[in-house]
Amino acid sequence: METEGKVIKCKAAVAWEPGKPFSIEEVEVAPPKAHEVRIKIVASGVCHTDWTFLHEVGKTMNPQPFPVILGHEGAGVVESVGPGVTKMSKGDKVIPLVVPQCGQCERCLINVTVQCLCDGDKSAMSKIHPDAPLDKVCLLGCGVSTGYGAAVNTGKVESGSTCAVFGLGAVGLAAVMGCKAAGASRIFAVDINPDKSEIAKTFGATEFLNPKDHSKPIQEVLKKLTNGGVDFSLECVGNVGVMVRDGAVEGSCTPAGGVCVMVGWTRIGELTLVSEDILLGKTLKGSYFGGWKSAEAVPKLVQDYMSGKLLLDEFVTHRLTLDQVNQAFELMITGKSIRTVIKM
Amino acid sequence: METEGKVIKCKAAVAWEPGKPFSIEEVEVAPPKAHEVRIKIVASGVCHTDWTFLHEVGKTMNPQPFPVILGHEGAGVVESVGPGVTKMSKGDKVIPLVVPQCGQCERCLINVTVQCLCDGDKSAMSKIHPDAPLDKVCLLGCGVSTGYGAAVNTGKVESGSTCAVFGLGAVGLAAVMGCKAAGASRIFAVDINPDKSEIAKTFGATEFLNPKDHSKPIQEVLKKLTNGGVDFSLECVGNVGVMVRDGAVEGSCTPAGGVCVMVGWTRIGELTLVSEDILLGKTLKGSYFGGWKSAEAVPKLVQDYMSGKLLLDEFVTHRLTLDQVNQAFELMITGKSIRTVIKM
Ligand SMILES: NC(=O)c1ccc[n+]([C@@H]2O[C@H](COP(=O)([O-])OP(=O)(O)OC[C@H]3O[C@@H](n4cnc5c(N)ncnc54)[C@H](O)[C@@H]3O)[C@@H](O)[C@H]2O)c1
Ligand SMILES: NC(=O)c1ccc[n+]([C@@H]2O[C@H](COP(=O)([O-])OP(=O)(O)OC[C@H]3O[C@@H](n4cnc5c(N)ncnc54)[C@H](O)[C@@H]3O)[C@@H](O)[C@H]2O)c1
Ligand SMILES: [Zn+2]
Ligand SMILES: [Zn+2]
Ligand SMILES: [Zn+2]
Ligand SMILES: [Zn+2]
Repeated sequence: METEGKVIKCKAAVAWEPGKPFSIEEVEVAPPKAHEVRIKIVASGVCHTDWTFLHEVGKTMNPQPFPVILGHEGAGVVESVGPGVTKMSKGDKVIPLVVPQCGQCERCLINVTVQCLCDGDKSAMSKIHPDAPLDKVCLLGCGVSTGYGAAVNTGKVESGSTCAVFGLGAVGLAAVMGCKAAGASRIFAVDINPDKSEIAKTFGATEFLNPKDHSKPIQEVLKKLTNGGVDFSLECVGNVGVMVRDGAVEGSCTPAGGVCVMVGWTRIGELTLVSEDILLGKTLKGSYFGGWKSAEAVPKLVQDYMSGKLLLDEFVTHRLTLDQVNQAFELMITGKSIRTVIKM
Repeated sequence: METEGKVIKCKAAVAWEPGKPFSIEEVEVAPPKAHEVRIKIVASGVCHTDWTFLHEVGKTMNPQPFPVILGHEGAGVVESVGPGVTKMSKGDKVIPLVVPQCGQCERCLINVTVQCLCDGDKSAMSKIHPDAPLDKVCLLGCGVSTGYGAAVNTGKVESGSTCAVFGLGAVGLAAVMGCKAAGASRIFAVDINPDKSEIAKTFGATEFLNPKDHSKPIQEVLKKLTNGGVDFSLECVGNVGVMVRDGAVEGSCTPAGGVCVMVGWTRIGELTLVSEDILLGKTLKGSYFGGWKSAEAVPKLVQDYMSGKLLLDEFVTHRLTLDQVNQAFELMITGKSIRTVIKM
């Protein structure tokens, strides 16, 4: 059936109100206008950020508008293009970008940020290799690129260094993979779920630590194991209690130039730090989409996967259909999945 | 009078208890033991850290032992050396180091920290150029090196960037000088004391801002002036209220890769940050002794002053004697001095 130029009907997982399950509905999608592209999403990973948005953000001071269609870790095929589109054509494989990269605004022209100022609807997808398996490379649309980049770009993990990664979902495991790629000599993988031990080692962790197995706070354990603290600590949970004091930052990171990278996202709670701990030599950094300039980085990351430099298959523990999206979140929250890929 | 090998008597400003004025007393100093050097201090700057130590630290959870002899921004001449000392001899001009650099411990061998692990009594002074004026270069023992290094080493201020320096004592003014040396295009100097405006410009500030002159919080003023925030903000006050939210960090620094450097020292209060502000792209760093590897850097900084690359004379607004040390602190706290140099 020829769909070009017509309004089409698609299935979408719609969130009607904060904290409630998604309902699968038929929505209409208009044909692409000038400089627009309409994509048929083929597969999508289920990222914790959607859950946080749905369950936390509704309860915060700045509630977001509902209803919304969530899902931001997809891959698809160009279904049709609007007038003036020259870089994409029907049938191209693409990954939509959580952060755009127009390449022209003042922020795209500097290295220190990936936050393009352009309207999110523009420059918001990358054309990828035609042989890329969409049900795997969709993970490069968010979680895996984020964790991997948090280690190699934001933290700039050094060869021979010691690292601790807190939270071993797709983001944390990708951070472990990044630490390994950077040549870290010891990579401590930390999670309260003991089932994450094996998989952490698959991605390069040298040791797994479960805070529940220790009577002392986990930062004390890590300090003891590393003669004062790790060189790099990465927070991939999204919990301010883990970020500082209790865990990642103040706890496990060395005062001798330690770098703490915040990757987990939350709007609940605040970070409370002792000024002197920062003063004496720690650095606290945030990582947004792993510090990748999205439009140019994503196709390269796809190639890195295809040439065997990046693992992706190992993240995919479950495959479900769109109708089963609530089950996908359930698997994530109960710690049974690493990534569920929804196939359309 | 030949003093070598004998116990000598010196005048010292002794702090007997927290929060009380110093009393000038005669103290005895034993001759140097093996690998020790006895120095005759000729001049010393009066740094805010001594005041904080005396007034804040006594009130905190971890009170420090009293009585103490404070003062840590001195310069002097080697009076005698103990057995085994080969690198120094009587008459050498030296600057005692607030942070030692043994050059051999695991921390001296890495770049990311200046916190030598050696016992503070060792490797704790630098021999400097024999023509260096001690009543000026003493400022390189702490405040000026700290502020300058906070900009050039810790913040790594970039050419063409925008900077804001909060607090225009010697530390902050030296930070302004560092931003200028790094080629910053706009340097906002911020202080609640209007008298600091002129001197800030001497050191390279392009604009002076007094938070009291604005009805809006100063970070809003700065964001407006800079299209969203400065690239580098440096806290040189030592007040957690200035560090975050209210001023330097969250306020004035751009979310697009802004770097906030904490230089001010305090043990009162905590830093409270919104996790998302860090996550989206800010970096928070601390600067300890300006990130200089002390033993090798201080003699070079002395040379930089002597060759006109660094300003020092402009910091010295008052010269007093040791008996007038309480007056020196009074001048500092009331904002009347930049640096008072005590001549012995
Ligand atoms: N910065 C970004 O651009 C970006 C991008 C994607 C995701 N995120 C965020 O990254 C975080 C992780 O995402 P994910 O999809 O991997 O989530 P996930 O739910 O798959 O994994 C989270 C892991 O943290 C573990 N955990 C929970 N509490 C813990 C604790 N106290 N100590 C140690 N481990 C603990 C869980 O057992 C789980 O294994 C989320 O906060 C998400 O919002 C950020
Ligand atoms: N990190 C280090 O290694 C190191 C070394 C030396 C000094 N310090 C610290 O640096 C800080 C500055 O030292 P200094 O000797 O220059 O002090 P100073 O007292 O000479 O200067 C402080 C300045 O801050 C200004 N100020 C006070 N409140 C302010 C506010 N709310 N907003 C803006 N400005 C404000 C004052 O008017 C004054 O000009 C102190 O906290 C000191 O302990 C740190
Ligand atoms: Zn995501
Ligand atoms: Zn852009
Ligand atoms: Zn000092
Ligand atoms: Zn050392």
